[in-house]
Amino acid sequence: MYGLILAGGSGSRLWPLSRELYPKQLLNIQNTDSLLQETFLRLRECMPASNILSMTGVKHISTVKYQLSSLVDNPTVLSEPISKNTAPAIALAAKYILEKTNKDPVILVVPSDHLINDTEKFVNTVKYGESIAELGYIVTFGVTPSYPEIGYGYINVTDKHIEKGFKVNKFVEKPDVELAKKYIEEGTYYWNSGIFMFKASVLLEELAKYSPDIYSKLDNFDFSSSDEIPFTEFDKMPNISIDYAVMEKSDKIALLKLESDWNDLGSWKSIYDVSKKDKDGNVKIGHVLDEGSKNSLMYSSSKLVATIGLENMVIVETEDAILACKSDKTQEVKKIFDTLKKQNDDTHLIHKTVYRPWGYYTVLAQGNGFLTKMIHVNPGQKLSLQSHNHRSEHWVVLEGMAKVVLEGKELVLSPGHSVDIPVKAIHSLQNPYTDNLKIIEVQKGDPLIEEDIIRYEDMYGRV
Amino acid sequence: MYGLILAGGSGSRLWPLSRELYPKQLLNIQNTDSLLQETFLRLRECMPASNILSMTGVKHISTVKYQLSSLVDNPTVLSEPISKNTAPAIALAAKYILEKTNKDPVILVVPSDHLINDTEKFVNTVKYGESIAELGYIVTFGVTPSYPEIGYGYINVTDKHIEKGFKVNKFVEKPDVELAKKYIEEGTYYWNSGIFMFKASVLLEELAKYSPDIYSKLDNFDFSSSDEIPFTEFDKMPNISIDYAVMEKSDKIALLKLESDWNDLGSWKSIYDVSKKDKDGNVKIGHVLDEGSKNSLMYSSSKLVATIGLENMVIVETEDAILACKSDKTQEVKKIFDTLKKQNDDTHLIHKTVYRPWGYYTVLAQGNGFLTKMIHVNPGQKLSLQSHNHRSEHWVVLEGMAKVVLEGKELVLSPGHSVDIPVKAIHSLQNPYTDNLKIIEVQKGDPLIEEDIIRYEDMYGRV
Repeated sequence: MYGLILAGGSGSRLWPLSRELYPKQLLNIQNTDSLLQETFLRLRECMPASNILSMTGVKHISTVKYQLSSLVDNPTVLSEPISKNTAPAIALAAKYILEKTNKDPVILVVPSDHLINDTEKFVNTVKYGESIAELGYIVTFGVTPSYPEIGYGYINVTDKHIEKGFKVNKFVEKPDVELAKKYIEEGTYYWNSGIFMFKASVLLEELAKYSPDIYSKLDNFDFSSSDEIPFTEFDKMPNISIDYAVMEKSDKIALLKLESDWNDLGSWKSIYDVSKKDKDGNVKIGHVLDEGSKNSLMYSSSKLVATIGLENMVIVETEDAILACKSDKTQEVKKIFDTLKKQNDDTHLIHKTVYRPWGYYTVLAQGNGFLTKMIHVNPGQKLSLQSHNHRSEHWVVLEGMAKVVLEGKELVLSPGHSVDIPVKAIHSLQNPYTDNLKIIEVQKGDPLIEEDIIRYEDMYGRV
Repeated sequence: MYGLILAGGSGSRLWPLSRELYPKQLLNIQNTDSLLQETFLRLRECMPASNILSMTGVKHISTVKYQLSSLVDNPTVLSEPISKNTAPAIALAAKYILEKTNKDPVILVVPSDHLINDTEKFVNTVKYGESIAELGYIVTFGVTPSYPEIGYGYINVTDKHIEKGFKVNKFVEKPDVELAKKYIEEGTYYWNSGIFMFKASVLLEELAKYSPDIYSKLDNFDFSSSDEIPFTEFDKMPNISIDYAVMEKSDKIALLKLESDWNDLGSWKSIYDVSKKDKDGNVKIGHVLDEGSKNSLMYSSSKLVATIGLENMVIVETEDAILACKSDKTQEVKKIFDTLKKQNDDTHLIHKTVYRPWGYYTVLAQGNGFLTKMIHVNPGQKLSLQSHNHRSEHWVVLEGMAKVVLEGKELVLSPGHSVDIPVKAIHSLQNPYTDNLKIIEVQKGDPLIEEDIIRYEDMYGRV
C-alpha cells in the first residue's frame, strides 16, 4: 500500500495560532508532534515509511520536509507550484506512484490536519478498506455523525452492501441545521472525512471518464528525472476538488465506516471539544490565571493570560495577536483572517517566530532602518553561506558557541562576543557543537527585507 | 491657597495597564497627560504652581518628579518612606506648609488619580470652599450619587447649612446594594470624593484632639534643612486614614457639593463608562479588529486584538499580560493582582517597558545569563556614570547618535556601531543631540539584576 498525505492548507481557521505560512497541520496542538507528524506516524502503521508521499504548497515545503525528516530519512514531498485544490494533486500523485513503482498499488489519501487518537481502529479500517479497493472500488471513509454539524459535507449511502461497506448514493454539500438533523434521523448519512483509497489505475480510469481535462494533461508531467512539478504545466490544470472531479460522479464509490475517533479540528470550538477540561469546564493551556470562568478555552503561548468570569469564551494569545471570541462564533475567525489579508497585515501570514531548517528566529523589535532578531541555531546546523546587498548585520552571542565565516576567515565566538558583517560581505553562521546557539542579530539597512539574500552554499538545498 | 496632591497608589485596580511601580495616576488613560499631570494642571487654576506639593511613595518618586517637571520647574515632591495611609502624610504636609510659609493658609487635598473634565466648575467649588475653610471648617467635597455604587464610602449630611454647604452628620462605610439604594432615596447621602480643604492650623488642632498619636509625633520631623522624611520616625506613625483619624470624629466638617463631573476610575468598568463609544457601544483603543461585539472595551497597547461576538466584556492587552474579564467583574482584577504578588510574579510589579528620568527601556528577551533591552534616550538626557560588578554590556546603536564614556575615554557611535562595556568598567551613555537615541543593550552575567549598579554621577540626583 502507498500513502498520500495532503499537506496544503491556508492557516485561517485556527488563527492566530495558525498562519498562512504556518497552517494547522504544522502545529502541535495537543502533543509534541505536529498534526502532520502524527498523520505520518499513523500511516507508518499501515505501510513502509518509504511508501508515504506528501503533497504541499511551495510556501510550506521546507517546513513539511523538516518536520518529516525527524521521522524518516529523505521524505518524499512533492510541491504544488500553485494551489489547484485536491483533484490535480491527487491525480499527479497517482501517476507519480505508478511510474516509480511500475505496479498498480492501492493508495490511501489522507488530510494532514485531522485528529485521530485511536490508531489501532484506524489501521483496522484501512486494512479492510484495502481489500475493497483491490476489488476496483474507490473506498471513502465515512464518520457516523454525532450531532447536526453544518460545517461538513455528508455522504448518503444506499442499502446495497459492498462487503462490509455501502454503495454510495450521493455526496451532499454542507447542509443547514434542519437538513443536518434530518440526515441524522434518516441514519443513511455520514460525514465526509476526506480520507479515501483506491487502486492507482482505478482513479486514473475514473478521471479519464469524468475529468478528461485533468486526465489528458497528465502526460505533460514526467517524474523520471525530477520530482519537480513545473508551474507552466500545473497552472493549466483546472482548480477543482477530487469530490467534484470524481467522487460525486463515479459509480464505483464504496463507503466504509471509520471505526476510530475523528475530529477535523476545523475551529477553536473543536479544539475545545477534544481537549481535557477541568471541573469548571475550562481548558487552560500555558500561563493562565483564572477567577471563576466556565466552559472556556484559554490559550497562552508565552504571556500571562488573566481571565475573570468568562463563560463560553475562547481566548488565544500569541506573540503578535490576541483573539477573544464567543465559543459559538469561532468559525468567524476566518473573517478576521481574510480582513487582515486584505489589509496586507502580516499578522495573517507569519508568526513573530519563524521556523527554518536550521532552527528558528524571533523578531524582537523593528523600526526605522533597523531590525533585531533572536536567532536560535540547533546543534549541528548551519545557515547558508550568504551576503546582503542592502544591509549590514551585527551578531552578539548569548548562549552556546558560534562558528562564523566572514569573507573566508573563520571565527569562533563565545557568549558576550560579537562580530560585524558589513554590507555585501560573504558570511555564514554555524553551530557545529552539541549545545543550542542563541544570538542577537541587529540588522541595519534600507530596505530591510528577508528577500535581500544571495545564497552561495546551503546544506538544505536552498541555493 | 496651597495644594496637596496625594500620589500614592498600589496599581492594582487597572491591572495590567497599571502596575505596582506604575499606578493609575501615572498613566495617561484618555489624554496625553497622565491623571497626575491633569490633577496638577487643575490645581494650577486655583493657586500658583509653586504652592502645589505632592506626596508619594518612595517607589514612585522619580516618575512623579519627572512627570511634574514637564509642568513646573523643581516640583515639590515629598516621599513617604513607607506606606502609612493618608493621615500621617496629610499631617506632615500641613506641618511642612506651615513651616515653609510661616502663615496659616488653606490647603486643598486631592487624590491624583481621579477624572474631572469640567475644570471651571471644579475651580468654582474650590474657591467657594476656601471661604468656608477660612471660617475654621474642614470642607469635604461630596458627589451627588447617580446610582447605588457599593464601592464608595458615603457621607450623610444634616439639614443644618454652613453657608451653601451642609453640616456633616456622619461618614459611612461602603454599603451593600440595598443600603446604597436607601441612601439615594433619602437624598441626604453623598459619595466621599476624598477631596477636602482646611486651614493648616485647624487640621492640626483636630489631630491634637482626635489623633494625638499622630499629632504628638509631628515635632520629630524638621523640614528646615531638608525635605526628607526619615524612615525611623515615619515608621512610628500609625497606619490610618484621614477619614478615620479626623473626619469621622470632628464636628467641624462641612460638606460642599462638587459641581463638576467626577469619576474615580476605580475599575475597567469605570474607564468604559467615561469613554466615548461607537454605535455598538464598544470602546476600541489601539490596534483592534472586531466582528460583531457589543458594549465591550478593547484596549491594545501594541499587538493586534481581534474580537468576535463579545458582549459586556473587557479585553486589555499589554506587552506581558492580557486581561479578559466580564464587565461586571472588573473589581475582581484586584484578586488577580494579589495572586500575582503572592506568587512573586513580576507581572503585578512592572511593565516590560520601564520609564526612567532619561527615557525608557523595554526588555526584549531574557534567558540563561543574558538579558536584551531596547534603550530609548530622550534628547539632551544622560544615564548615570556607572559600573556593574557582575555583568558586561554590549551596546549597538539603532537610531540617533550615542555619546559613550568608557573608562574616561569618549566615543561617539552612529547607527550600526557598537561598543563592549566590560565588567566593572566605569561608563555612561548620553544623548546630547536633538534626535532620539535608540540602542540595543545585551547584558551578560550572573546574577543579572537591576540592583547591580554603582552610580558615580547622576543628573537626576540618584547617586
